[in-house]
Amino acid sequence: MKQIEGGVCAAKGFTANGIHCGIRKNRSKRDLALIYSSTRAACAAVYTQNLVKGAPLKLTKEHLSDGWAQAIICNSGNANTCNANGREIAEGMSELVSKRLGIKAQDVVVASTGVIGQPMSLEPIEKGIGALTDGLSRDGCEKAAEGIMTTDTVKKEMAVEFTLGGKTCRMGGIAKGSGMIHPNMATMLVFITTDAAISAEMLQKALSGNVQNTFNMLSIDGDTSTNDMVVVMANGQAENEEVNGEGEDFDRFMQALNTINVGLCRMIAGDGEGATKLLECKVSGASDKSTARTVAKSVICSSLLKAAMFGADANWGRVLCAIGYSGAQLDVDKIDVSFQSDAGLIEVCKNGAGVDFDEALAKKILSEKEIDILVELNSGAFSADAWGCDLTYDYVKINGDYRT
Amino acid sequence: MKQIEGGVCAAKGFTANGIHCGIRKNRSKRDLALIYSSTRAACAAVYTQNLVKGAPLKLTKEHLSDGWAQAIICNSGNANTCNANGREIAEGMSELVSKRLGIKAQDVVVASTGVIGQPMSLEPIEKGIGALTDGLSRDGCEKAAEGIMTTDTVKKEMAVEFTLGGKTCRMGGIAKGSGMIHPNMATMLVFITTDAAISAEMLQKALSGNVQNTFNMLSIDGDTSTNDMVVVMANGQAENEEVNGEGEDFDRFMQALNTINVGLCRMIAGDGEGATKLLECKVSGASDKSTARTVAKSVICSSLLKAAMFGADANWGRVLCAIGYSGAQLDVDKIDVSFQSDAGLIEVCKNGAGVDFDEALAKKILSEKEIDILVELNSGAFSADAWGCDLTYDYVKINGDYRT
Repeated sequence: MKQIEGGVCAAKGFTANGIHCGIRKNRSKRDLALIYSSTRAACAAVYTQNLVKGAPLKLTKEHLSDGWAQAIICNSGNANTCNANGREIAEGMSELVSKRLGIKAQDVVVASTGVIGQPMSLEPIEKGIGALTDGLSRDGCEKAAEGIMTTDTVKKEMAVEFTLGGKTCRMGGIAKGSGMIHPNMATMLVFITTDAAISAEMLQKALSGNVQNTFNMLSIDGDTSTNDMVVVMANGQAENEEVNGEGEDFDRFMQALNTINVGLCRMIAGDGEGATKLLECKVSGASDKSTARTVAKSVICSSLLKAAMFGADANWGRVLCAIGYSGAQLDVDKIDVSFQSDAGLIEVCKNGAGVDFDEALAKKILSEKEIDILVELNSGAFSADAWGCDLTYDYVKINGDYRT
Repeated sequence: MKQIEGGVCAAKGFTANGIHCGIRKNRSKRDLALIYSSTRAACAAVYTQNLVKGAPLKLTKEHLSDGWAQAIICNSGNANTCNANGREIAEGMSELVSKRLGIKAQDVVVASTGVIGQPMSLEPIEKGIGALTDGLSRDGCEKAAEGIMTTDTVKKEMAVEFTLGGKTCRMGGIAKGSGMIHPNMATMLVFITTDAAISAEMLQKALSGNVQNTFNMLSIDGDTSTNDMVVVMANGQAENEEVNGEGEDFDRFMQALNTINVGLCRMIAGDGEGATKLLECKVSGASDKSTARTVAKSVICSSLLKAAMFGADANWGRVLCAIGYSGAQLDVDKIDVSFQSDAGLIEVCKNGAGVDFDEALAKKILSEKEIDILVELNSGAFSADAWGCDLTYDYVKINGDYRT
């Protein structure tokens, strides 16, 4: 497997575009994105577990009930959630795409991201749909990635090439992250395309299994969004023999998916609202997988630890505290904690108690842009990773007045 | 029932003191507090559910196994947690008090608050114990309240007078709040004294029942501390007939306890680390008590909502979002949301969707120091309140470098 360029357009048969249509006031920010496959694609998705669900998400769930799709339309600037005409707008969006591209409305995935509970109008999308579809191109991924951004500061895209049954396949994804991110079964917006041939059933199995170790292990601020979804479209244009059961090919497909998803997780965490640092908590030595996940997620979610990381303060007591209240059953007296970055590794806690350490070195290690928090539970063979970011003045600033 | 002065010394037979003994470097900050009852008192406590528990907390649990106590010693500046000599220090503290006051070491409650995992020495306490006990006085509550403060900016004390069986009783408390506050069954440090006569069993029942509606409904930052405890001592010097079962007297006692605890909750929330505003989420119309509590707590814990309140931004979508991911089962389409303060009341969401509202008025309402977030679920007769604070630049600043 190797990393390649092209994002969601890396796979055969996929084109994309992103434009400014007027949902946002700022004319320099694209607010509408489209991803299109020249042939119908098997399609799988996972959705937010928030009881408050955006209208686009509900419609998409219905559209994907047959396991097929051909296009994804997504706007930013308005979440189309908790507003009276949400359903109407979402349906309108899928119909506009359907008409312009000559595909079934049922084959359109609709997504929206932005402020919740604001009135929304279809008008800017009606006006923009022509330019949006006319501009679809094999190098349109960047524009689409920009079109789904909210408070993201960088666009997030990634692609890999891999082999299934002797055929070269490609897979790529784009993501919108930033805030209101604490996935529960699903996550923020992630759109993945592949030209691998895989049955809708196995595609869903691959996605549902993988998000447990990737997007579900990501937290920016503990708030689970109303509009989160991860969608993957597989159009089969790589002409490999269709993956329709477990085995070597499915494993390879899972590896590619995992590489894309871990990559996007890290990009989302590193670009969390106001973040200056990417935090990765690596838990090992757990008695079972669930304990490892619970501990890693609890550490990455602690506001106190996140603030300490912002200040490059090796306050490991907060790591232990977060493990202690995680709900996992474990022996506190066996826990070791270290901090690691490009500047080195330092052990700060052994057997649940502090050890003498070089504060200057700790400061240096924690001043890097990517910090690993290593937790060894010394109680078994299971491990898990979780991703997050530091808590900064800018998180407060961004969210103190988001609507205006 | 009426509010009176005196805090933990309001009740007959109680004296208190607080000094600087040298655990902290800052000589102007008291770091050691003592509360003493001239006679043995029935004593009840609730403790943190964090698996990582401070050594003082473990010792106190053993000491209170017989339901009696006579003194509470508490230091700030070091949590005496996750350090190798924790048990030894905690025992040393109780023995010093025991010797100086001529009471049983078993009757001493020991508590510590401050940084986790730092080496601690008994030496400053040995040096200070003479001044600490010699200075015990009926007007020493303020000094004790200061002695337990960490990043608190104001001391927290409250007292009430009430009647049991024709006898005037008094109850008062002090609290240390600020950060790492997200109680789970118990909470930060709260010490309550009363001269009411009540059996240890009924005292525990009263406390355990009441914290569900008070300290367990309080969150500053979602982090449950390792050292949290609420202790209540009742020495019976009011000479009322001992409360040893349910009935009118027990109900009155509960009312007094609830008044003290709600008062302290509000003080702790309003003085949360970096906070500029006290937030109170009042949920009504729930189908059961548990739903009401879950919803209120989830709203008060949302980092996004807390940041919006800091910015006086009426971003009610974040209230709905937090309700949606709370885990409570409810009908989203029935939810109404309003914001209220001394500047007025404004409805922002009706039946789960936004309503037109005056943004200028909303801004004015949300610019006050105390904000009520009113959530009507329209599904039943149960209600619950939760307390928290806004998320500010100063929270990040304080916690970016707490240890140094």
